[in-house]
Parts: sequence; structure tokens; C-alpha cells
Amino acid sequence: MGNTFGQLFRVTTFGESHGGGIGVVIDGCPPRIDISDADIQWELDRRRPGQSKLTTQRKEEDRCEILSGVFEGKTLGTPIAIAVRNKDARPEDYKEIAAKFRPSHADYTYEAKYGIRNWQGGGRASARETIGRVAAGAIAKKILSTLYADFEIVAYVTQIHEVAAKIDRSTVKMKDVEENIVRCPDASAAKKMIALIEQVRDEGDSVGGVTECVARGIASGLGEPVFDKLEADLAKAMLSIPAAKAFEIGSGFAATRMRGSQHNDPFEMRGGKIRTTTNNSGGVQGGISNGEDIYFRVAFKPPATIALEQKTVTSSKQEAELAARGRHDPCVLPRAVPIVEAMAALVLCDHALRQQAIKR
Amino acid sequence: MGNTFGQLFRVTTFGESHGGGIGVVIDGCPPRIDISDADIQWELDRRRPGQSKLTTQRKEEDRCEILSGVFEGKTLGTPIAIAVRNKDARPEDYKEIAAKFRPSHADYTYEAKYGIRNWQGGGRASARETIGRVAAGAIAKKILSTLYADFEIVAYVTQIHEVAAKIDRSTVKMKDVEENIVRCPDASAAKKMIALIEQVRDEGDSVGGVTECVARGIASGLGEPVFDKLEADLAKAMLSIPAAKAFEIGSGFAATRMRGSQHNDPFEMRGGKIRTTTNNSGGVQGGISNGEDIYFRVAFKPPATIALEQKTVTSSKQEAELAARGRHDPCVLPRAVPIVEAMAALVLCDHALRQQAIKR
Amino acid sequence: MGNTFGQLFRVTTFGESHGGGIGVVIDGCPPRIDISDADIQWELDRRRPGQSKLTTQRKEEDRCEILSGVFEGKTLGTPIAIAVRNKDARPEDYKEIAAKFRPSHADYTYEAKYGIRNWQGGGRASARETIGRVAAGAIAKKILSTLYADFEIVAYVTQIHEVAAKIDRSTVKMKDVEENIVRCPDASAAKKMIALIEQVRDEGDSVGGVTECVARGIASGLGEPVFDKLEADLAKAMLSIPAAKAFEIGSGFAATRMRGSQHNDPFEMRGGKIRTTTNNSGGVQGGISNGEDIYFRVAFKPPATIALEQKTVTSSKQEAELAARGRHDPCVLPRAVPIVEAMAALVLCDHALRQQAIKR
Amino acid sequence: MGNTFGQLFRVTTFGESHGGGIGVVIDGCPPRIDISDADIQWELDRRRPGQSKLTTQRKEEDRCEILSGVFEGKTLGTPIAIAVRNKDARPEDYKEIAAKFRPSHADYTYEAKYGIRNWQGGGRASARETIGRVAAGAIAKKILSTLYADFEIVAYVTQIHEVAAKIDRSTVKMKDVEENIVRCPDASAAKKMIALIEQVRDEGDSVGGVTECVARGIASGLGEPVFDKLEADLAKAMLSIPAAKAFEIGSGFAATRMRGSQHNDPFEMRGGKIRTTTNNSGGVQGGISNGEDIYFRVAFKPPATIALEQKTVTSSKQEAELAARGRHDPCVLPRAVPIVEAMAALVLCDHALRQQAIKR
Repeated sequence: MGNTFGQLFRVTTFGESHGGGIGVVIDGCPPRIDISDADIQWELDRRRPGQSKLTTQRKEEDRCEILSGVFEGKTLGTPIAIAVRNKDARPEDYKEIAAKFRPSHADYTYEAKYGIRNWQGGGRASARETIGRVAAGAIAKKILSTLYADFEIVAYVTQIHEVAAKIDRSTVKMKDVEENIVRCPDASAAKKMIALIEQVRDEGDSVGGVTECVARGIASGLGEPVFDKLEADLAKAMLSIPAAKAFEIGSGFAATRMRGSQHNDPFEMRGGKIRTTTNNSGGVQGGISNGEDIYFRVAFKPPATIALEQKTVTSSKQEAELAARGRHDPCVLPRAVPIVEAMAALVLCDHALRQQAIKR
Repeated sequence: MGNTFGQLFRVTTFGESHGGGIGVVIDGCPPRIDISDADIQWELDRRRPGQSKLTTQRKEEDRCEILSGVFEGKTLGTPIAIAVRNKDARPEDYKEIAAKFRPSHADYTYEAKYGIRNWQGGGRASARETIGRVAAGAIAKKILSTLYADFEIVAYVTQIHEVAAKIDRSTVKMKDVEENIVRCPDASAAKKMIALIEQVRDEGDSVGGVTECVARGIASGLGEPVFDKLEADLAKAMLSIPAAKAFEIGSGFAATRMRGSQHNDPFEMRGGKIRTTTNNSGGVQGGISNGEDIYFRVAFKPPATIALEQKTVTSSKQEAELAARGRHDPCVLPRAVPIVEAMAALVLCDHALRQQAIKR
Repeated sequence: MGNTFGQLFRVTTFGESHGGGIGVVIDGCPPRIDISDADIQWELDRRRPGQSKLTTQRKEEDRCEILSGVFEGKTLGTPIAIAVRNKDARPEDYKEIAAKFRPSHADYTYEAKYGIRNWQGGGRASARETIGRVAAGAIAKKILSTLYADFEIVAYVTQIHEVAAKIDRSTVKMKDVEENIVRCPDASAAKKMIALIEQVRDEGDSVGGVTECVARGIASGLGEPVFDKLEADLAKAMLSIPAAKAFEIGSGFAATRMRGSQHNDPFEMRGGKIRTTTNNSGGVQGGISNGEDIYFRVAFKPPATIALEQKTVTSSKQEAELAARGRHDPCVLPRAVPIVEAMAALVLCDHALRQQAIKR
Repeated sequence: MGNTFGQLFRVTTFGESHGGGIGVVIDGCPPRIDISDADIQWELDRRRPGQSKLTTQRKEEDRCEILSGVFEGKTLGTPIAIAVRNKDARPEDYKEIAAKFRPSHADYTYEAKYGIRNWQGGGRASARETIGRVAAGAIAKKILSTLYADFEIVAYVTQIHEVAAKIDRSTVKMKDVEENIVRCPDASAAKKMIALIEQVRDEGDSVGGVTECVARGIASGLGEPVFDKLEADLAKAMLSIPAAKAFEIGSGFAATRMRGSQHNDPFEMRGGKIRTTTNNSGGVQGGISNGEDIYFRVAFKPPATIALEQKTVTSSKQEAELAARGRHDPCVLPRAVPIVEAMAALVLCDHALRQQAIKR
């Protein structure tokens, strides 16, 4: 259960890190949206392992194949199935973990839940699962661009360990983000981040950080007042990404140290439109978008796979030592950027269709 | 849409702050759970306005009535409907806001979404909506207690503005929390918090803060690997609470400044069981509970309703001044505590039933 | 579980036949639809017991109260809760059945499912549960009238036991149906039906029959190609009505005795529109409406409650005799008519909103 | 939308008749169920085109590939993706229908709904879509066999046009059904049916019929009291099969000509168990299984594709003549048998898991 996301734009992912393949079925996509393999592949390439020295060296082309739902370059309105084959799987790397639970991985909890697991890798807990999300996100972005002329979504790294970047949230563009391999549009901070990640990797360790994401051009009125508040669905989307530990929208935790008189966003008329002077709300009020930029941050922990030796226990309850094998990222942040964007696009697209359903 | 929460333990709330009443329908409750009006009323009283000098003085008894689904003190397995009448509504207090959008409220976004709103109050955005959640949460707690002998859930205030409390998360009990009106089990910090909230209230302003929640005694194996990770559903649940701005589980944002070698929770044998030495994971690994304490924090902004004059615009696009009327909380934290517990219980109960469905 | 119907226009009913009350919460209703208590009450009165000599003499006014979601005569877009109190409950009539399972009732299966039941009546299996459906159906009809200028829905009785009526499906109007108490627009057949039902009632027995329903003015394009075909959702809706045993759309069972060359509906141009010459499809092709009249039939069994003595067993597994007490309908058909219409309206309204969501 | 079926055992199908391939993702499958390619292939072979002279001669091996969710012959509890490639597609056969709407097909309604369609075949309306259902059904049967020792499900043809079979519902076995190519376990009727279908095919026409299905060994207590009654979900499942026009459970339409005193199923003690003497209820009372055999019938229309010339219109609204090309079944009944079984298994499996969720 729990492999489907969305109410109207419904995304179901499947596949283990090791096995036949990975993929996604998207149900509820409106018809006649232009979409090509290349649109999807471009996003998958941003997520792909081996794309830079900062990422795992697993060699996966992640070449996507659209199996259904698209005809002559346009969506049919029927389910779009996209599959990617697993290629560079090395199950032998995982033999040790067949018996030993890797600390802070999902090995133990899968065993507790299912009484069985595919020990030849991380199974569904592997970051490979996110391929399906990114593919679906590429389509969601297309739909949002069709609905909102000024729509754009940009995520970027704002912090790696203690290195924090300075970024102008209201102007940053995706091309700025893609200028370096750590995906931080502050060049000077990016340099330090890259050096830090390389150092940490060489020490056999890993490191965490923060991603920020901003969505522009979204109409007011998206989101539902109670449980399916826009920020609630965004929070769920973000916390469903492997290694995510926290989410904040707009002012976030900083709001807790503010007074209402500082925090409230006064309304004003600007360009003939009702706008807010400030945007502590992060573009969402009462769960519903107000037309301002929607922005939020996601905290990622340091990856659990490290080369240093760790204490653990075996499935037969013996205490043991473990040193990681396999090829892994010393820091998930650079590759998290397209995933965060994709998940945000899924939420926004779903709510855009929901709003269309009741529009009069 | 979006007024239902949960997959198997399904909670649907209804009602505006002003109108006939507020309530909830709970579908999927297992049969033969002992439940009484008093069980539910006890939780509602913790959420009730007017319970202390720190909360809004709206006079609402919030007397609940169980309309269905319970027979001779036991659940029937059929939908439990619970209703609470609105009594001390004063729509005249809201006349001004019929035309003026209150900053950082949902007035403007409701208008944008629906093209209509019940201006005699906050509608569904009012904290009154959470009555239904708290009532449902009382039942969810009962079910969890039936399933897990050692189950308990405790939320408490850890910070108001700059005042931070020191609390031992592993031992704090609900009775410690209920000892003072701000619901902070650190007596010395509580005193400062109360003084601060009173001062802020007297200044016509409002203030934010942080709640922490810990759930103990939950079995390992709850939560789904991908989109419905336990932390993802908790994040959604928490961000769906009015005024919530951020969520972090376990190490949260602090994880971003840690290395994997520090952050990983080594496994060890303890009391004959597989346990973790530390608990940066917050009791959840790969989206699934590992049997350790589940804990998380929620950030709340300062309430939007303040007595100080603010700039805004009218629905006819005229700039205007607004000073709040109505009776409101200067700080939501004390009353947020039972709501946070209730939402956490809803998530845990839902996942407990989901796990039971596939158990072999 | 299973007390919610619909994807976008979501209807949740609650309440037992004996207990506080019965009702419904409707989530997903578009805003600014005109609706009044009277609109709903009019439909409830068609469903009400005691409306004629053919129905149970339980005295229930079934006076509805709208608790939320409507403001100044218009829907708000938020959940509409409607409640009806139980009044003329006589639990003492049911004492005998606390221990004895009534044949072909749900007493035994509730016990098997839940291990508990409210023996003071039929619980959720009572026809009283349909009050919520009819109330929701009244709103669904309003929405459909807003969307489709020529929309109308008419159900009527076509057969009681061996008495069959002759009715022109393409012209029959609701006023024709309401002309007699058996709701059969063929006056001569109606007379025989009424006589038969009275005779059967006097003999302490009960009798079954068939309802037909036609929906006119529905646009083409409603319904989903695979599992949520329009006829599939209609079939589910109809078989969810107490005592329903069969469903057929268009040609139905008669199609099994036809050849393709007879059964196919040729397309032709008529009034400048693409139309079909015949309508064996019942207005639905490939699960999607084609703009022709949608029509279907529902078979209802004779009510299980009869005054004649019957063999049964007790909950302690003793064989026993049972003669019904309580006040019941000798034939459900006359009161099934508004319920069939309501359920059809719920399906059509839900699909209308679903189609709006993807419309470009 | 509408490509997912089930609440806990969730089946999502994808794929057009012409395009990359067809398949299914199954979410919510319990872990550690034995499953192999061969188990699934055996059912797919019963559904396959070209299996006998009675079916379309499209040459499709329909070789299934399990992409995920199964490891070393056991289910993992994670999504099971199964894909089948399209091979013997002949889009050129469909050129004529790119412009002309085939009568009683979904060409026109797809166009109305989506404004686009893959005209190289029937798209999602093709019977090829049911491959995914049959594959999922094979797994559902496995689960049901694990849960209920005596579980079996048998569907068979009882009528083709005017030829009706005599079959003892309480004893018929699947091997009896598989003894002839029309899947009618009455050998003498089967012979006539085969002759009739061949004759009709040779005349360029098609013919309808009836399938009956019986499920044995299902525990009492499955099904939900209101909207998700077992018969309601079965009705939806059956009417979602291409060409299905009607559904009846137990006594079905015959109940309309019965009195309550005849129709009621008296309870008796038999073999130490509470049983019913008769089974007009079809194994379901008040929407919930009572432990007796569950049985129902499904009516299928004659296939819309016939070789005879028919009147129709083009997408540019010109009247036209059409004679079918392509390879099609003159009667769907023989191949409908495994599909009916599969859909019934999906419903029963889903409800079995739902019941397990609330079991105490």
C-alpha cells in the first residue's frame, strides 16, 4: 500500500533497486498535453547516478520507455506507463547485508513489516524508486505550464552541513541552479559545498543539508481548507522523499520567534491586483494559494550508507560490525533537487485539477 | 474536498465556526472498542476555548453528542457521528470583515477559491473545525491502547517565542503537561511563557511557538515504504492544523549539520530485543516504525488575529485599515497540544489497521 | 468502512435505524449552488415511511436539518452536513430478534462481521440509512441542472411480481410517476399493482418488482474507460440499495439473445448532431456517455420482513420459530423510486465533476 | 482516471491495444505469498486470443513479465508490476476507423471525452486491457487460497443466444469448464453453442450470452454494510468488463416474481454450523457474506465488431458505410470466463483484507 500519490493526478510507482525494473503509472493526466521521451529524459538525467563526481558511481543510463498513454506526441487521457530497466545491479555487493541490518536504513523495518525483503539492495527504500516520481513530475510540469502562463518551479541547495548559501529566492532561475554540480546558485558557497562533500566522501562519511523550492505563477485558489491544505500535501510529498527529515513553508520555524504584527502579510493593491506586501505565508493562507510565490524548505539527513565501520545486529540477533559496500552518494542534496521539484509539481498539478473540477 | 483523513480509519469533519454546528464522522472504527461520551468530552475540554486566561474567551461548552456507531458503550464497527452545536457565535463581531480581507487569514483565499464565504467568522479555517479531529483522536487513542499495551502519546509546548523549555522527552507524562495552563512540563519555563503570552495579549499582539509530541509503545512495522511513510503522513497531519508552519521528525533540521557517522542509530541487543542505541531517526526508518519512541516537533506561527491596526484591502479592491474584533487566542500553543496528539493518534491508528490488513 | 460514495462528489452517510439520528456529509460540492431545506425535504418526503397505505406505518417526519456548508441559500464549497433525528423508534418491537436471526436479513452477517450489533432494529441495514442518500441526491440533481440545461432524471416502477406496466421511456415525466402511490405511470397497471401489494400485505407476506430509471440531457463524455465505467458505477450504486438483486443497462439481459447486427446502434446525423438511430447501449458506450438517454433497470426482492412464521436459529445455535414484529413495507418498490433517482444522480454528478477536472 | 480497482488490494491497469504494451501494478499484496510466472501465465493463456477457432485470430503469445514485487518466488509486500508486450498489432487494419466511428464501439465516446484517441485499435476499450486484470486475479486467487482452505472460484457459460445449458452450480469444477472451447460444462449444450458461434461468425455476425460464477469456501463477514456491499462491488467489477450489460446475484431478476415467504432463506443448524436451507441470497445478506456459496450471473452483448456493412458517421459529420476489418471474436463468452473469475477474485480478496484490518 501507499505507492499511489494524488487524488486526480494519480501517480503509482513500482520497482525495487534490484530486479526487472522501475517505473510509474500516471492516471488522470488530461488529454492533448504535448509530451516526448526527451522531456522526461531531461529530468531523469538530472536525477541520474553517476552524473558528477559528487554522486554514486552506479552506472545507470536510466533510459525511459513510455509504454502507453501517449500517441503521436500527445497524451491520450489514459494511463501513462513509463518503465526504466535496472542494469548495473551488483547484488553481490549486498551479500553482507542479507544478514546484517544496516543502521538507519530500512532493512530492519522492512523485515519487521513484511517478514521478507529483497536483500540485494535497498528495495523500495532505494533512491531508484524516485525515478518514477521524476518522470511523473516532468509531465506535471508540462500540465502546469499549460494551465498557468507564468508557471515555473525552481529548487536549489541552500545549505550543506555548516555551509549556507545566499540566494535571492524571488529571482533565481533553473539555469542558475544547473550551473554547478551541487546545484547551489551561490557560486562561492557552491565551491565550498563541493569541497566539503568530496572531503567527507574521502573520509568514508556522509553529510546532510537543506533544499529550498519556489513555485511561481500559480493562481490563487489552489488547495483545500482542511486536511488537504496545500502545505499539508507539500509536507507529505517532501517527507516521502528518502532521507527527508523536516519541512517548513514560508517563515517556517522562524515564525515561532515572531509576533503576529511582524508575521502577518498585509494586503495591498499592486499592478491592479490584490497582493501581499510581505510573504511570510509562503504563498499559502488557510491551506489555499494566494497567488504569491509558494516556497518551502526540506531538510535532508546525511545518507545512512557510510564506509566507516558501525555497530549493528544480525537478523539472528547477534551483535556485529558492518562496513558499507555498494556505491552510494556521500550527500543526497544535489540529486534531491529534481526530486523536490517533481514532488512539488505533482502536488500543484493535482490541486490544479481538483480546483478545475469545482470551478464555475 | 479534502475533508476526509485516513485510509482505513477515515475521519471526515464538517461545520463552520458559525452555523448549525461542527462535527465528525468516523468510518472504519473496529467494533467492540469501549467508548463513552466522557472519554471524548475529556479531550474536547482540553481543546475548549475559555479554559484559561490564555485562550479566547468565546464561551463554548463544546458538549459532544454521539449520534451513531456506539451501542451500550461499545463501538459497532459502523460510522460514529459526533456533533457539537455552535452556541456563543457573535456574527456581528465579523461585520467588518465581510468586506475587508484580514491579513494572513483565509478570507481572501476562500474568496479566490469559492467566490463565496460565510463571513460570519473563519468558516472552515476556524480552529473550531478541530473539534471533530480531537473527538476522533480520542477514539483513535482508545484503539491504539487496545492494540499496544504500552501505548501512550504525549504532546507539550517546548518553546514560546524566545522562551525555550528543558524537557526529558523519554520520561515526560501527560499529567506533567496538564500541570499548567500553557502545557509546558518545565515549570520554570512555563511561568515565563505564561507571563509572555499575557503581555503580548495585553499589547494586542500574538506570538508563536513549538510543540513536541512523543508516541511510545508503538510496534515496529507501521508505515508504508513510499508515499505513505509514517513521517510523511505525520507531516501532512501536522501541517493540516491551522497556523502550523513546519514539521520535523527525530533529528529534523539538526540532521543537516551532522555527518552520517554521528547521525546513524546503531543497532544493539537490549532486553532481548533489537533496539537502537540512539534515536535520531525519531522511531521511523524508511518510513516504517522501528519500535523506538516516535517523536516530532511542529512550529506554529503567531495567530493572525491581532488587535493592532493593520493595512489591508477590501473585496472591492480598496485599500483599508483593519483592527480585529472577535475573541481570539494570543497564542495557539496551549490549545494546539491536544490537537497535535489527536492528529498523531489518527495517523498511527490508521497505519495500525493497515498493517493488520496484510499481517500473516 | 464503505460508508463513502463518489470520488469528487463524496457522500458519507451515518446512523442506525435506532439511535440518535441519521445523516450525511457531502464533500466536494461546488460552491454557489442554490439549495434550500425545502429542496431536500421534498425528496425526503417521497422516501418517507407512512406516506401511503402501501408503506410501513412507522411515523417519521424525517425533518432534515442542514448543519453546515450552506450560507444564505447557497452552497459554500465546504462539507454539507444534514441530519435527521430518529423519533418513532420502538426498540421493544425488536426484543425477539436480539436473540433470533431474521431470515434473509443482515442480523446474522452483522454478527459474523462485527461480533456486535444494535439489535434494536436493522442498524445500518435499515432503509432509514437511505435518507442520507436521498438528501445528497437532491443536491446532486441541483448541480446537474446547473451543468446541463435539459437534465432530468425519472425513475418509475415497471413491474410488481407478475404485473408489468407499459411505459414510454422516452417521454415519461416525474409528474406522471407521482400520480399514484405505487409510482407506476401506467394507470391501469398501477391499479393492479396497488391491489396486489395490499393483498400480499394482508396475507402477511411481501413482494418484489422492477424499477426503471432514465436520465436525459447528460452530455457525452462522462464516465471512465476501464473500472469506473458509467454503467459500472451505476451498477454499484444500484446494488448498494437495500433489497436490490440485479441491474441491467440498455438492452441488458435481452442483449444475450441478440446478434451484433441487431444490437449495434448505428450512428446518424440528426438535428445537426451525431446521434444513434437505436439505443440498445442505454446511452453509454465503452463506459462513456454518448449523449443519448441513459436508462437502466433494477430488480428488488420481496422484503425479508414478513408476518408469517419462519424457521430460523438463535445466536446460541438453537433452532427456533420467528414471526416478524415491527412496521415494515410489504413491497419496497414505491419508496425505491426516489432512492434509485438519488443514487443515479450521485453517480452522474460525480462523473460530471471528474470530466470537468480534465476538460481543456 | 478510473484505472485503479480496490481499496486495499489495489489494481491499476495500463496500456492500449496498440502501443508499447499492456500491464498492471498491484499494490497492497500481502507479503510471502507464493507466486510464479507460470501461475499467472496459466490464467493469461485462458484469456489469450487465438486459443481456439471461436476466438479472434490475432496472434499474441501474451507472455507476461513480472518486473517487481516478487523475490525468489514470494511476494515482497511491495507493488507487483506485470507487463505484456503488444506484438501482432496491425494498425493498417484500423485506418478506416480513424475517420469513421464504429457503431456501439467506444470510438465516438472517446473522441467526445478526450478530443483525441489512438485510432490504431480500440485503445483502452480493447479486450487486451483485461490482461492486467487476469494477471492480478491470478494473484488474488492465491491469496484467497491462503486465507480460506476450501476456497475455489468457478465461472462458466450458461447461455449463448437461445442455447441454454443445464449445470449443477453446487458441484461444477473448473476442470469441467475447461473441457470444451466454449467453456460450458454441459457437453450437449456446449456442442450446440460451438456450432452456433461458428455459424454466426461465418455469417459475419456476432452473438451474446450469459456467464455464471460461483465462489465457494468464503468465510462469513466479508463485505461492507452500505455502499461497498459485496454484491455492489461485484456488480461494479462485472459491469466494468467490456461488453457486459447486466448483473444479477442469487435469485436476481427472478426475485421480482417471488413472495418473501418463498424467497427468504431460512436458517438451520447443519454440520454444527449456522447455515441457510436455500440460497436465494446468493451467499450475501445485507451486503455481507454469510458463508454460503456466492454466485451471480453476467450478461454479455454480441460483440460490436461485425463483418456486415453498417451505417455510421465520420468525425467530420458525414454519413458513411462501414464494414469491419481487424480480427475479432464472434462471441466474447468463452474468453469472458477467466475475466469474470479474475474480477470476482479481486473483489473477494480486497474485502478479505478489509475484514482482516478490523478483526479483533
